[in-house]
Amino acid sequence: MKKPYVIGIDLGGTNTVFGIVDARGSILYSSSIKTGEYQEVDVYVSALAKGLKSIIEQAGGSDQIKGIGVGAPNGNYFTGCIDFAANLPWKNRIPLARMISDSTGGIPVALTNDANAAAIGEMTYGAARGMKDFIVITLGTGVGSGIVVGGNLVYGHDGFAGELGHVIVRRENGRLCGCGRHGCLETYTSATGVARTAKELLIQRTDDSLLRKLEPENITSKDVYDAALAGDKLSVEIFEITGEILGEAFADFIAFSSPEAIILFGGLARAGDLLMKSIRRALDKHVLKVFAGKTKLLFSELKESDAAVLGASALGWEIKN
Amino acid sequence: MKKPYVIGIDLGGTNTVFGIVDARGSILYSSSIKTGEYQEVDVYVSALAKGLKSIIEQAGGSDQIKGIGVGAPNGNYFTGCIDFAANLPWKNRIPLARMISDSTGGIPVALTNDANAAAIGEMTYGAARGMKDFIVITLGTGVGSGIVVGGNLVYGHDGFAGELGHVIVRRENGRLCGCGRHGCLETYTSATGVARTAKELLIQRTDDSLLRKLEPENITSKDVYDAALAGDKLSVEIFEITGEILGEAFADFIAFSSPEAIILFGGLARAGDLLMKSIRRALDKHVLKVFAGKTKLLFSELKESDAAVLGASALGWEIKN
Repeated sequence: MKKPYVIGIDLGGTNTVFGIVDARGSILYSSSIKTGEYQEVDVYVSALAKGLKSIIEQAGGSDQIKGIGVGAPNGNYFTGCIDFAANLPWKNRIPLARMISDSTGGIPVALTNDANAAAIGEMTYGAARGMKDFIVITLGTGVGSGIVVGGNLVYGHDGFAGELGHVIVRRENGRLCGCGRHGCLETYTSATGVARTAKELLIQRTDDSLLRKLEPENITSKDVYDAALAGDKLSVEIFEITGEILGEAFADFIAFSSPEAIILFGGLARAGDLLMKSIRRALDKHVLKVFAGKTKLLFSELKESDAAVLGASALGWEIKN
Repeated sequence: MKKPYVIGIDLGGTNTVFGIVDARGSILYSSSIKTGEYQEVDVYVSALAKGLKSIIEQAGGSDQIKGIGVGAPNGNYFTGCIDFAANLPWKNRIPLARMISDSTGGIPVALTNDANAAAIGEMTYGAARGMKDFIVITLGTGVGSGIVVGGNLVYGHDGFAGELGHVIVRRENGRLCGCGRHGCLETYTSATGVARTAKELLIQRTDDSLLRKLEPENITSKDVYDAALAGDKLSVEIFEITGEILGEAFADFIAFSSPEAIILFGGLARAGDLLMKSIRRALDKHVLKVFAGKTKLLFSELKESDAAVLGASALGWEIKN
């Protein structure tokens, strides 16, 4: 009998959310534990296994489960390990896929990073259904990417491919990135990047703005978004600048893999047309002629609160038992 | 019975070279016709078919031939057509794969562009044997690329993926490219780009150089190479600058697909260590930490005179009959 469900686990620095998902992308049962409370990974996995056991029983037992997919920072699909993730309590290399499988009586587990999980989620349940070539760009605290070529996720020879937040978009006087280099896409187009642009413009310029009522150090991308919605010109311009840099970068991504679509995912994608219009304008201006007008620009179609669990769960369908 | 041979056709602006190739990458019989002499594509295909018939007979007849692979400028794998190739006598869209198949009694024909053919050639007979993830960069009059991910060539949704000569490496004051945009990789690192760098430096600077004996307008990358070999400092520096820009670009390519190797192919690759040392230095400096030291930099292992025919022929093995 075909097993009707998969489990998705979204491992974040604060919470770990997990749920039972059916083939249509509905989350039937879900639960969560607080990642940050477990200093020892063994104790964390025990707590997770307990939570999983509970929802597995609700779903009719483990023979209903085809597989478990995990989306985790620095998760490596090939090794099933998390390697030195900065925002998690456990350092070193954690063989998480094996540990979860062992603690659930041998359900097969596949693991990858958050952005790759998002891409598989879009392909299985979302905006990329039926597509074989597309790129998901995650715009959150950082910028990540999941790249699909010919229907398969691009893992590269080491499992770490798809770091498009770290292509260089400004080679001269580029912003310092958390990775130690300068000019990475993520320093301009993440939520943090938008806040940096706001701070820079407020210093460089003298025009009036709602943002001037805030402490510059505390301005967030949400503040810029709210101000833009309220008609603040400077804030609208900040999103235009952000979109323009994304459009320039997308032109290069298209020269690489010529995707049918580029899909925006994550918190900053909520900016919608504020961002998309200038991405489109910049892309049209910068894209190589042979690709002109061919690549769709889309927003994620996964419901935001469920997206990470759905994305991870989609990996569960891909497991070869 | 397994068919023991394939045919490779290298369609260039001047000559069309074709040969019968065995599974080990030996060219058993070969011949050529002059592309430029045929203003009508029908007449061209008839002449090509006559040449093919002759070598097919030498090989024991068409039931010895598994397939024909064609490498051609602007060749599209999905459609089997050549689209508006600037350097060929025939304009519009030419359904070349079908025409060649029809004129050879139905031997299956696959067609792709030159750089993709080079990549399949390296995977089948050359430096990428056994690899599943690598990139071939062709350094000739232009810069092209063939990208392999998970053992498959990246064609993109439209068959035109892999235009890495046209990623933007200089966003401010970049050189004008033949594509109409500014700052493309190929404007700096093609044979033509090397000659441009030479002309620029000779104007900007006053230091002595063997290149000053030549008419600036006539300087070629070969002149720069010869001068560098003779110890000319300025010429050595020109290759270093070229290699540095390639290394910077390679760091971005690695962030995309994390290849096991990047393989240099084509005329300018003959510069060898003159180029490779500074590529390696720049790559080590610019690559994201997670990829540091992981990607091999290699030269093509296909014999140069045979490389294009071998590359095209390798496509012949891939055809699903």
